[in-house]
Amino acid sequence: MLPETEWFTEICDEAGSAFSFKIKEKLVEVQTGFQKIEIFETEKWGRLMAIDGFIMLTDRDNFLYHEMMSHPVLFTHPDPGRVLVIGGGDCGTLREVLQHPGVTSCEQVEIDEQVTRLSEQYFPELCSANNDPRAAFHFVDGIRWVKDAEPGHYDVIIVDSTDPIGPAQGLFTEQFYRDCHRALGEDGLLVQQSESPLIHQRLLKEMHTAMADAGFAAVNTLGFPQPVYPSGWWSATLAGKTSDLTRFREQDATQRPFETRYYNPGIHRAALAMPTFLHQQLGK
Amino acid sequence: MLPETEWFTEICDEAGSAFSFKIKEKLVEVQTGFQKIEIFETEKWGRLMAIDGFIMLTDRDNFLYHEMMSHPVLFTHPDPGRVLVIGGGDCGTLREVLQHPGVTSCEQVEIDEQVTRLSEQYFPELCSANNDPRAAFHFVDGIRWVKDAEPGHYDVIIVDSTDPIGPAQGLFTEQFYRDCHRALGEDGLLVQQSESPLIHQRLLKEMHTAMADAGFAAVNTLGFPQPVYPSGWWSATLAGKTSDLTRFREQDATQRPFETRYYNPGIHRAALAMPTFLHQQLGK
Repeated sequence: MLPETEWFTEICDEAGSAFSFKIKEKLVEVQTGFQKIEIFETEKWGRLMAIDGFIMLTDRDNFLYHEMMSHPVLFTHPDPGRVLVIGGGDCGTLREVLQHPGVTSCEQVEIDEQVTRLSEQYFPELCSANNDPRAAFHFVDGIRWVKDAEPGHYDVIIVDSTDPIGPAQGLFTEQFYRDCHRALGEDGLLVQQSESPLIHQRLLKEMHTAMADAGFAAVNTLGFPQPVYPSGWWSATLAGKTSDLTRFREQDATQRPFETRYYNPGIHRAALAMPTFLHQQLGK
Repeated sequence: MLPETEWFTEICDEAGSAFSFKIKEKLVEVQTGFQKIEIFETEKWGRLMAIDGFIMLTDRDNFLYHEMMSHPVLFTHPDPGRVLVIGGGDCGTLREVLQHPGVTSCEQVEIDEQVTRLSEQYFPELCSANNDPRAAFHFVDGIRWVKDAEPGHYDVIIVDSTDPIGPAQGLFTEQFYRDCHRALGEDGLLVQQSESPLIHQRLLKEMHTAMADAGFAAVNTLGFPQPVYPSGWWSATLAGKTSDLTRFREQDATQRPFETRYYNPGIHRAALAMPTFLHQQLGK
């Protein structure tokens, strides 16, 4: 038994599993117009943010997710200048994006301003690029933002959202992918967090189908470890208008002028490899 | 709170984390001369075996571990005939090894016969190769077995053990690796489960050092997902007497005459890629 005063536990009903982190104290709990945000100080994982009871990130392992949501897509695009992040309110993805010197603007469209304000306070290292002049913040609905975007405006769209329930549900639809496709330039790329390869195979298949139906020429899923999400195994799905998504700017990735803790060109190639069961499930 | 009657929970003190699986019932609990073995029927992961409170395997995800403990090492060796499995009492590794037509014998040396007897009863699919005439079972101490082995006898030694505490502690020492080195033939390969790349970096570094000090010319760590082990991210460390461990029989792996659910040549290459932090930690 894990007493609630000492442990934060997330139950994943779908997987019949749960995982828990030992906590020192709850730092804050806020009910916003959209969701309940809690932040804890843990024993071994630094700070932990949960939204509606689901762990979003910890200090200790968020580098895996944030690096894999940004560097593979940015090194796959030939010359990414204008980047849009949908969701991503903790600003960790924005920070990684702005490490790429060629990026001229990174707009973050997060529906719930409180996620960003609390991150600035409790996860300052994730927000270290928030004052970069290339960063812009819009606290509005991302689905609407993409629908209204000028055609061909963005080079890369990163969908760094919560699970496909509640406010994020509309981010996993063919209509949204059509709007992304229209908002992207010629070599445009979309990447979206796409849940666990082990637990969410049906969702992955639906995403691949919907992205292809929306007009994307290539769709690839990249796997990576993510200890604080169910099964500890997570994925990002990349959709491209024209590119072969298995090729990327390897030399630029090798000579990247910034530090990473997980990402490197070998890891990029590795993430593109698919388990046999996923080849079978996705029919590719 | 997760009531003990409905959930099996494993606490990892070292990581300040825990994970839990919803159970229907406990099928068996046996205290052997070595350890406590429990088997549960879970809601979503099939059957689960725990030893001294630590999850060993579930029906749902053991394929990841068993495939990665056997196929990479066997396809790296030029022509593996004689294979030794130390531990591996659930027989899942033995089953995978015996799928390779070139293997002429696979000896399993498990200290606790009860692990195998209970697996035959509760995990019959893992034991489906136990009657293969190439299989032999010895319920004795694996450390002693390797010490007494004829020099150069084995092509591949697979150490499929519990964590480096209790009976398995001696399997993580330079002396044991020296004995393995002597028991292996010219192109001989050792592979050992080597815990979590995120949580057990010190152990990994110690293993690399001890294996090199024991005379192995090359040491590589392969990562893979393993949802039921702490952090959901696990590894196997390969040590070779002569080989470049990044090359393997890709064509044979592609044309393998058996089914896999995780392993394929792309996954094999991918597993060899190391995160930046591990490159730094291991100094390679």
